[in-house]
Amino acid sequence: MDFEEKTLKRTEIFDGRIFKVAVDEVKLPNNLGTSKRELVFHKGAVAILAITAERKIILVKQYRKAIEQVSYEIPAGKLEEGETGFETDAASRELEEETGYQGKLTPLYTFYTAIGFSNEKIRLYLARELKKVEHPRPQDDDEVIELFELSYKECMDLVKSGEICDAKTLIALQYYALHYGGDI
Amino acid sequence: MDFEEKTLKRTEIFDGRIFKVAVDEVKLPNNLGTSKRELVFHKGAVAILAITAERKIILVKQYRKAIEQVSYEIPAGKLEEGETGFETDAASRELEEETGYQGKLTPLYTFYTAIGFSNEKIRLYLARELKKVEHPRPQDDDEVIELFELSYKECMDLVKSGEICDAKTLIALQYYALHYGGDI
Repeated sequence: MDFEEKTLKRTEIFDGRIFKVAVDEVKLPNNLGTSKRELVFHKGAVAILAITAERKIILVKQYRKAIEQVSYEIPAGKLEEGETGFETDAASRELEEETGYQGKLTPLYTFYTAIGFSNEKIRLYLARELKKVEHPRPQDDDEVIELFELSYKECMDLVKSGEICDAKTLIALQYYALHYGGDI
Repeated sequence: MDFEEKTLKRTEIFDGRIFKVAVDEVKLPNNLGTSKRELVFHKGAVAILAITAERKIILVKQYRKAIEQVSYEIPAGKLEEGETGFETDAASRELEEETGYQGKLTPLYTFYTAIGFSNEKIRLYLARELKKVEHPRPQDDDEVIELFELSYKECMDLVKSGEICDAKTLIALQYYALHYGGDI
């Protein structure tokens, strides 16, 4: 069976600071004709499940304009120009900027967040052996965040209340449950 | 601490079949000035972890234009106008359309896929007690998909090879590992 959709024409819609938008006219395989694909191109991001010596999970509380709500999430940040996320540089930077910690980083999973329309890819890292940095890198100047160190049980309460509600944080908590014990 | 970002101005960029794009100019809290938020509005979707009597997982192989690759994913589909996804109608429809099965549906998790820029929300269901439908609803006419019923071990091989690479399928496999046994 043939699956590939060949691009007949790409129409660029938007070229932003965070993402680009295009509409592709595609030739469907197996003589099914043509269709359109609306696409969001994103540089990708890293996210970090940071676990303290007391097995607490570091969460960042912040406002998310897309959902007009505050949410609690694991620390994360967009890749910068030229970064692939495969090296630990970006994860190390975002961990320090958002939490003031450095740690020993291990890659866990890599996944597309919204594969139906976007190429945004997140590389999720585990951070252990955390150490407070004396003069951490400053946060982005348009971010207002508050830090929390919560037990797994406290995190589950935030899942139940809907204050933890995003895919990357859910994946991190499931990882925690699988490897440190817990139910989700 | 105040977190809310008030909208000063919204500029509509794109009004598509799958999503809308807007750029909001926002007033940051705590007198931090203003910033811009690039946003993708999506109607939401349902996804289904369908497990057969033999404890195999139903996956759909399909081409994803956003990443220009084929991927294996759990069955999923967009909500239609007026659907919230809280009722099992949409999940039942997508399961039948994509797999030809009906089943007993249980809600597992609800999550925003790309909370940094999009309000796309996926409701993930578990489907058990699967029964083949005699004349299933037809698939969308611009979708070419192939069905697989794979063991957890076979799914893990696809995770390792990168052919399973999206957040919703990873969340479903972690759920399987937590509740039916396995490591991920």
